[in-house]
Amino acid sequence: MKAARILDAAEELLVSYGYRRITVDEVARRAGVGKGTVYLYWPSKLELFGAVLTRDAARLVADQLDAMRADPAEVLLHRSMRWVFLAIMARPLARAWSTGDVELLGELMTRSRSGMLFAGGKRETTDRYLAVLHKHGLLLDEPSDLLAYRLSAAVTGSFVLESLTPDFDVEDKADALALTVRRAFEPSATPDPSAAAVEVVGLFSDWLSELLGELP
Amino acid sequence: MKAARILDAAEELLVSYGYRRITVDEVARRAGVGKGTVYLYWPSKLELFGAVLTRDAARLVADQLDAMRADPAEVLLHRSMRWVFLAIMARPLARAWSTGDVELLGELMTRSRSGMLFAGGKRETTDRYLAVLHKHGLLLDEPSDLLAYRLSAAVTGSFVLESLTPDFDVEDKADALALTVRRAFEPSATPDPSAAAVEVVGLFSDWLSELLGELP
Repeated sequence: MKAARILDAAEELLVSYGYRRITVDEVARRAGVGKGTVYLYWPSKLELFGAVLTRDAARLVADQLDAMRADPAEVLLHRSMRWVFLAIMARPLARAWSTGDVELLGELMTRSRSGMLFAGGKRETTDRYLAVLHKHGLLLDEPSDLLAYRLSAAVTGSFVLESLTPDFDVEDKADALALTVRRAFEPSATPDPSAAAVEVVGLFSDWLSELLGELP
Repeated sequence: MKAARILDAAEELLVSYGYRRITVDEVARRAGVGKGTVYLYWPSKLELFGAVLTRDAARLVADQLDAMRADPAEVLLHRSMRWVFLAIMARPLARAWSTGDVELLGELMTRSRSGMLFAGGKRETTDRYLAVLHKHGLLLDEPSDLLAYRLSAAVTGSFVLESLTPDFDVEDKADALALTVRRAFEPSATPDPSAAAVEVVGLFSDWLSELLGELP
């Protein structure tokens, strides 16, 4: 209860002012608790705000799980990249994280325990996710490290260009990304994704539990 | 003669120290000419260094033209992206330009007349190049603005990730880029590129002339 209120306050301040300009005092005041209460939950400003990012990531993963449960085709690589791109662009923190917005996040992404755990969990989950898709014939055949590199290179540009190409709206950009990923990574005829979906939902659930385990 | 010596001196200093830390005095001294001589050719430090970038770009375009003349298949989109990626990574200035290295280039790319002409010429040439490939059946069918955006998004990541993914060497990355572009933009069976090559060589030659026209 109190922890959630503190995280809400920290998140609001973070989005408005950026990590470096906020003090723990200000967060405590906005949350209506004493500074000592904040330190009951988190040892430092860095870890408090790390938890803000972790909670945001957990919400995003939970939403993606809902989408995959509602429609198993959402596990297909081009659908999931499209979904993630739109979800990230709609969330100020995720957007800042994915475009490397140092102004807003400062050393939060690279130095907090949560930030590092998130990056590690994301990489591991992505690797397992790609392996599941490959096993079920939903990806073209290629070595897994090449696939991971190619995917990262093919997707990164959409985030980097987001603020530079105002003539396309975000839905157009998501469709363009989906088209590139569909053609560059999937066979022209894809099998039924239902069996893969069960496994993918399982491993995203594991990841979500891990993220939630980091929160009070 | 003298102009080329001044450009050589400016280029050496630029690569070593970055735009902001060099003075026109230092360039003149290194080139063994008076400061007044530099100003005979260029009205400002900005335009002198703009000419350094223009000359570097002209050399890159000339090299690519040679490659296309030697093998018409080099005009295919995936071959040409592969070639350009490797050529840029091998040239310190082009690399700085393509990765947006503000430390090295400062306001050079965005504020010099040459920088703006180069960016404009590059965009126009790319549009014409893609139209030629499309006309000759060497690209999948899609609206030209979507194609240009998708290509830009798909290619950008290779440049952004270049310094972040040391486990792949630059040739591996070039191959990965070629594979993505091959699959995401070209039909599975591509026709003979010879006819397209004649036109592409023509329009790259025009672009080269334009760049050379900017140099003394």
